[in-house]
Amino acid sequence: MLDRALQAARDQRETSQADLFELIRIPSVSALSEHAADCRHAAEWIAARLQAAGMKVELADVAGDGRRHPVIAAEWMEAGPDAPTLAIYGHYDVQPADPLDEWVSPPFEPSVRDGFVYARGSDDNKGQVMCAIRAAELALANGQLPVNLRFLIEGEEEVGGPSLPQFVKTNAQRLRTDYLFIADGQFTAPGLPNLLTGLRGLLYTEVAAVGASADLHSGIYGGVAPNPLNTLAHVISALKGRDGRVTVPGFYDGVVPPQERELEDWRRLPVTEEEQKQALGVTALEGEAEFSPLERRWARPTLDVHGILGGFQGEGQKTVIPARARAKISMRLVPDQDPDRIFDTFAEYVDSLSTPGVRITATRLSSGRAVRTGTDHPGVEAASRAFEAAYGARPVLVREGGSIPVTVDFQEALHPHLLVTGFGLPGDALHSPNEKYSLDQYFRGIEMVLHLMENLRHAPRA
Amino acid sequence: MLDRALQAARDQRETSQADLFELIRIPSVSALSEHAADCRHAAEWIAARLQAAGMKVELADVAGDGRRHPVIAAEWMEAGPDAPTLAIYGHYDVQPADPLDEWVSPPFEPSVRDGFVYARGSDDNKGQVMCAIRAAELALANGQLPVNLRFLIEGEEEVGGPSLPQFVKTNAQRLRTDYLFIADGQFTAPGLPNLLTGLRGLLYTEVAAVGASADLHSGIYGGVAPNPLNTLAHVISALKGRDGRVTVPGFYDGVVPPQERELEDWRRLPVTEEEQKQALGVTALEGEAEFSPLERRWARPTLDVHGILGGFQGEGQKTVIPARARAKISMRLVPDQDPDRIFDTFAEYVDSLSTPGVRITATRLSSGRAVRTGTDHPGVEAASRAFEAAYGARPVLVREGGSIPVTVDFQEALHPHLLVTGFGLPGDALHSPNEKYSLDQYFRGIEMVLHLMENLRHAPRA
Repeated sequence: MLDRALQAARDQRETSQADLFELIRIPSVSALSEHAADCRHAAEWIAARLQAAGMKVELADVAGDGRRHPVIAAEWMEAGPDAPTLAIYGHYDVQPADPLDEWVSPPFEPSVRDGFVYARGSDDNKGQVMCAIRAAELALANGQLPVNLRFLIEGEEEVGGPSLPQFVKTNAQRLRTDYLFIADGQFTAPGLPNLLTGLRGLLYTEVAAVGASADLHSGIYGGVAPNPLNTLAHVISALKGRDGRVTVPGFYDGVVPPQERELEDWRRLPVTEEEQKQALGVTALEGEAEFSPLERRWARPTLDVHGILGGFQGEGQKTVIPARARAKISMRLVPDQDPDRIFDTFAEYVDSLSTPGVRITATRLSSGRAVRTGTDHPGVEAASRAFEAAYGARPVLVREGGSIPVTVDFQEALHPHLLVTGFGLPGDALHSPNEKYSLDQYFRGIEMVLHLMENLRHAPRA
Repeated sequence: MLDRALQAARDQRETSQADLFELIRIPSVSALSEHAADCRHAAEWIAARLQAAGMKVELADVAGDGRRHPVIAAEWMEAGPDAPTLAIYGHYDVQPADPLDEWVSPPFEPSVRDGFVYARGSDDNKGQVMCAIRAAELALANGQLPVNLRFLIEGEEEVGGPSLPQFVKTNAQRLRTDYLFIADGQFTAPGLPNLLTGLRGLLYTEVAAVGASADLHSGIYGGVAPNPLNTLAHVISALKGRDGRVTVPGFYDGVVPPQERELEDWRRLPVTEEEQKQALGVTALEGEAEFSPLERRWARPTLDVHGILGGFQGEGQKTVIPARARAKISMRLVPDQDPDRIFDTFAEYVDSLSTPGVRITATRLSSGRAVRTGTDHPGVEAASRAFEAAYGARPVLVREGGSIPVTVDFQEALHPHLLVTGFGLPGDALHSPNEKYSLDQYFRGIEMVLHLMENLRHAPRA
């Protein structure tokens, strides 16, 4: 299978590119209800591909209320009950494209410049999940696949939605999987792939502040009218010090430091503080000075505000004291912080930070624990050799600051050997204007997945 | 003139109402560039009315760059050089209507409910300036006007624009005026008109915070990426304490307390703290506890945030660390605070409040000093009798928390006797959804201006 499939992958690069562009053009923004039909469209597009490739495909509306985005569950079990089963996770939903005016080319119209395709979702995650979809198509079309294959693809990754977790939990028995492959990340440096030993968790909240019963004129009422925006500033300012330390009581309870071996690996990585500053375009990095920048990104929890809504958002001036305002605040969590306990403390704490006349309410929009993946299972060697064959380099063992909350659900329901990695490159501008993805990384990613399937041929079952 | 004009005012209430509605329907939002043509339309509409009434009208594009809104200068000087000249100020521009979904009826379609017309600008200031426009039309159509008359109407009041100040300064000689009447406020209570002895000034700023060179993913970079929204929260939190005291260094320099006589008057007003809390719909008033609520609104400076832009403003979740964010922050000023000096200190102070990796820049969008108006000139008695005739009550002497920055420019350029008052009512929801204006106040306001013209007949020139 492998040689023929690899040859086909090389012969059909134009097809692989056209397929990716077709998927990118579907603006499947899960956070915005006006794109619900686009999310379904993207799901149906992928389901049709996998079905045409010969897989048994199910498109599941898990919540069944029409407000959620479908899960795609596909399987090909003809390698037989003794062969290992490889499951592939990905997500077809993307982040909103705003601010639109900062895009050089339209976000949902792929534009190729200098070997990169620029578009929302080009990297995160359409470009990466398409590596596995194309690999499955090529493998199934070119001989006997040596492993059983499964896809579990969701449309609520960017909104922390419940559909896939619920689906996996409910169907754990029939979804039995030995290896779970997740490509939703980036190389550590160009030419340097990685496998993850840990992922941060995420607790995403919205904090609402309510003052007067209507918006007020600051000329008439300034001095007596509670201003929810000023109050939110007091609240946010009291959540994290200027030194980067989060001041929510008990926030650091349960934090487990990385192993000394991990820290040593990280110190050897070709990523200097100066380079990170240059990559971000800043004169100084923020955060806890007593930890290295990589440790802060991978093994330290933190807190960020993503948006403050309310009041006047237009050009020019408006002297409104808004009746209400909201802040989107999230916390990145590390092993073994407990999101439930932290949310409870957080809600109580922000309430205590209010000012006269303003009511504060914290709501949890989503949460997921941090993940530690085992790194000594046989899949690690299989994946390492697959990277070496496709990219010419073995992966380093690192962590990732971002969360893939569903990883926790997979661990709890399926107990698979996890292989968490990514085909993106640093600087791909995920979640930002002008997101991009290297076409060379894409084509090699298809080959990497083909090698992985082959290398798992004799791997033991989990 | 008076009796015939008063009779005509009563006979033509339907016309007066239809005229006001016509002006309201022009969405002359000065802050939004897409409404520039509507602002011009409103100006032309008023200019045509005054011209038709017999006045000499000039529509002046002061800045001449097409980005500003025209000034209407109209005059009728046929009462002769010995008669006093009454100038009337007003503005045809209105605040933006957002949030649109909180309006019960469309903001630019007048809707009458329970004797009030609901619409953006119905009170502020179209409904009030139309009292004077209708009064001028009725007076000029019904006999010899005993005073010379002038209108100075602008379209940049809500954005603190430079056109009218520049126009008044440049043309001070030919705009000579004895009495200047401004109706851009509210009664102290239903049935209780007022004349103002002071108005707060306004310093409106925008504070920009710039972090990384592009938006970043908080999973990947949270812990090292400077977050301009968190920084702005630190800045804003440090500008005003939870006790309402502004902490900008030197902010209170030059603050002159009100006269004891004013404070005594205010204590006698039928406005309790409990009523103010109920009017705002809050459990507690914010601000400096050592000053009464009215003193805080009228004679104490303060600081409010009106909006915080940047990051994710949509539904749901987005884990972006924005590259930049901005806050709209204004300060209400009292006599004799110096806006120039305060802005300089403010800019230096906010810069000092930044966090690592974030650059802070403060920009002044507009500023105007607080105003003290003389209250012992002959116009006060003329206006008091006019209120008594039209509304059955003499005005109380109060202050106003809002600013009419052009008042300062008028004082400096024309040295007129100021008569600053208003025909609105408390609760008219200026700058808010469902702004409204009492039609009874409107019809009586027309009569008040007619009486004022008559009462000034023998008033000495300024």
